[in-house]
Amino acid sequence: MADTFAQIAESLAAIAREFHSRGWLMGTSGNLSAVVDREPLRLAMSPSGVDKGELTPAQMLLIDEHARLLSHSADLSGVSSIKPSDESPLHIRIVQKRGAGAVLHTHSIWNTLLSDLYFDQGGVAIEGYEMLKGLQGVRSHEHREWLPIIENSQDMLALAETIGDTLRNHKEAHGFLLRRHGLYSWGTDLRQAKRHIEILEFLLEVLGRRKDEGRWKDEGARIRMRRKDEG
Amino acid sequence: MADTFAQIAESLAAIAREFHSRGWLMGTSGNLSAVVDREPLRLAMSPSGVDKGELTPAQMLLIDEHARLLSHSADLSGVSSIKPSDESPLHIRIVQKRGAGAVLHTHSIWNTLLSDLYFDQGGVAIEGYEMLKGLQGVRSHEHREWLPIIENSQDMLALAETIGDTLRNHKEAHGFLLRRHGLYSWGTDLRQAKRHIEILEFLLEVLGRRKDEGRWKDEGARIRMRRKDEG
Amino acid sequence: MADTFAQIAESLAAIAREFHSRGWLMGTSGNLSAVVDREPLRLAMSPSGVDKGELTPAQMLLIDEHARLLSHSADLSGVSSIKPSDESPLHIRIVQKRGAGAVLHTHSIWNTLLSDLYFDQGGVAIEGYEMLKGLQGVRSHEHREWLPIIENSQDMLALAETIGDTLRNHKEAHGFLLRRHGLYSWGTDLRQAKRHIEILEFLLEVLGRRKDEGRWKDEGARIRMRRKDEG
Amino acid sequence: MADTFAQIAESLAAIAREFHSRGWLMGTSGNLSAVVDREPLRLAMSPSGVDKGELTPAQMLLIDEHARLLSHSADLSGVSSIKPSDESPLHIRIVQKRGAGAVLHTHSIWNTLLSDLYFDQGGVAIEGYEMLKGLQGVRSHEHREWLPIIENSQDMLALAETIGDTLRNHKEAHGFLLRRHGLYSWGTDLRQAKRHIEILEFLLEVLGRRKDEGRWKDEGARIRMRRKDEG
Repeated sequence: MADTFAQIAESLAAIAREFHSRGWLMGTSGNLSAVVDREPLRLAMSPSGVDKGELTPAQMLLIDEHARLLSHSADLSGVSSIKPSDESPLHIRIVQKRGAGAVLHTHSIWNTLLSDLYFDQGGVAIEGYEMLKGLQGVRSHEHREWLPIIENSQDMLALAETIGDTLRNHKEAHGFLLRRHGLYSWGTDLRQAKRHIEILEFLLEVLGRRKDEGRWKDEGARIRMRRKDEG
Repeated sequence: MADTFAQIAESLAAIAREFHSRGWLMGTSGNLSAVVDREPLRLAMSPSGVDKGELTPAQMLLIDEHARLLSHSADLSGVSSIKPSDESPLHIRIVQKRGAGAVLHTHSIWNTLLSDLYFDQGGVAIEGYEMLKGLQGVRSHEHREWLPIIENSQDMLALAETIGDTLRNHKEAHGFLLRRHGLYSWGTDLRQAKRHIEILEFLLEVLGRRKDEGRWKDEGARIRMRRKDEG
Repeated sequence: MADTFAQIAESLAAIAREFHSRGWLMGTSGNLSAVVDREPLRLAMSPSGVDKGELTPAQMLLIDEHARLLSHSADLSGVSSIKPSDESPLHIRIVQKRGAGAVLHTHSIWNTLLSDLYFDQGGVAIEGYEMLKGLQGVRSHEHREWLPIIENSQDMLALAETIGDTLRNHKEAHGFLLRRHGLYSWGTDLRQAKRHIEILEFLLEVLGRRKDEGRWKDEGARIRMRRKDEG
Repeated sequence: MADTFAQIAESLAAIAREFHSRGWLMGTSGNLSAVVDREPLRLAMSPSGVDKGELTPAQMLLIDEHARLLSHSADLSGVSSIKPSDESPLHIRIVQKRGAGAVLHTHSIWNTLLSDLYFDQGGVAIEGYEMLKGLQGVRSHEHREWLPIIENSQDMLALAETIGDTLRNHKEAHGFLLRRHGLYSWGTDLRQAKRHIEILEFLLEVLGRRKDEGRWKDEGARIRMRRKDEG
């Protein structure tokens, strides 16, 4: 890894501020990580309970493959307890299963809505959009992206297991949704992970608003009904 | 309290600018306060009639438990009259009843809409979202948050009484809505109060947009109706 | 007037940038003015054909009561022709009829939609919202604001006449809409005019989204219809 | 051309950042170009695969009329391969057919939705809005703008041919849509091209949200149906 922990922490804080301003990391929601070393695994991880709009580079923590805290900066003002995010095991699992260099997790209005609306189907299919080409390895809008949806849980170790299974069963997926919770995506580096989040958030909003289309096309039918009703 | 009045005034003005940019404090709407001292009560309070996008630390006022003006900065340019917000009694009541260290009140599109839409039910239930864990003391998405809705009034002392009753009857609530008016939330300190506003605004928007789901799922029924109509 | 032309030009450009970032002055749309002197009338006016996101203080023009150009700054880079906005006569009429010190005109998504949707009714009624108290002279949410809607026209002198009539017939109005065009509001000074725009834009968006409520409440009826259809 | 390559690169990067913050260039989506010289054609072009929120002036490339790379800045950090955008042939075709000085291409939620919704009609008609006057040569809101919609393709040379035909058949068009892909617009210079994008994005959002109007007006009919159903 060319980037030092300090550089990575700087980039993570910048992404947190940008995503917070878009409304994707409101309050303490969401978390961010990036690999500092692979052998043994060293991960820069956002702390638990810190507002993402105020996250500073100095607050980023260094953890190992068991989510144990290894070190942190001297300046931790505003952090109630020095603790990596509860969802660290999920990040570690994704890094291990996908060889990811960075993992980002957002809570947006649209990913929250769609994670519930499509839960019964087990996932969301996104197909036919040029924007899909922003996902690593996708070369045409004719690609079909399947975003699996996993039931939410507070048992993070069990959830990490389920995520491991999901990643194995959906080897092509660039992300997944936790029900009524949010979106996870990743990349070979932080830049690619950020891009994947932007692409997937965009496409989820398109799908959400597209639902209106059925209603739009239905105007003719309703006009006929009204005439019958009045006639 | 570790923070001085000057530091608190700085933080309140920064929050006002950020919330204004999100469209939650348009024009002179909304107000903000934070406790400077408890015994006797000294509250930093936003002035009446000042546009929140332009609120400066120097414009913040110091008031007592009767909402009387105690002192203010020398620089009050742009303030037509040096007067604490009309809603100061509501802030004071919340501080007293909840032991809050800060109280924030926003007017957003979605809190305005939902405060009216759910008024007949007496409140809004928010349940099953991971985002709820951003509220103090909530440890699982399975939490059910009940946001009471109170009829709006210009009689601030009567309204303070009603709010006192509501807070007594809903000891677990992290906020409440005033009908066609806005959201109140609070926290042990300003950081927590800001987080609670972000969390609740997010969840109210999810609920508002989720209403569409009923329509979305209804497409099949309408297609059948159209066929009958045409057949 | 305490403020000089230079100070006013600075404030107008700052408002233009802020409103442009909110999407209320896209491209060259909208215009802004403020009174520099009353006798004879001297108005600082935004130039024609300048993108509002790039408007600089140096581009603001000084005009008289016939919308004639009196003077301008030396630096007019980016202005194709030194010409006050075509809608200057509308600003002048409002200043004369209302004694306004500033006039602002925005093109937002919601004011465009509602100016058309309510055109047949002659205006939009806004009633019962706390936010109304941000309008000058309004002391209670129980106020009913009537925003007249005027048919759009490219004949600016004729349109100025119609606006004069409208202002005479609706002495209490704090603004009006031009059909499929935009919102005009004003104030005793620039600060108040900006506040009025923020308040009215907020309320128009609330009304626009509130339309959905009818649909929301109708879910029960549609479920019954579906049962009949299937039964 | 008065502007140097360095000045143009600066302007293109500034527009990219602004459009990215509006959500119109998420991830690597969209691209931007401006003419540096006409004879022979020299075009400043955004590189392939660079996130638009991070695009720097130093990353802009100089290409000829065959989309061949001529030169670039020394500083290309963050660019995986020094390659002009795959859609360069489309930009070149527009420059040649329209005599444009700049071409901009955005991916917004609303242009994506409408490019699909109106595809069967071959285009979108926008008529009767004052905002249309922001398009070059349009002097009245009574103008009817026809935005052709072209089927998306990954064969950029074939697509450039189709675009050439479309521009020939729709000589008055200020832009066109690629299905489920995005909006192209242009101008005599970069300022005008940016204005055209802002105007067209605004109007597409108005059209998209206006679709709701049919539903809004239908409330009366549904209330009558409900009564019959219950009666």
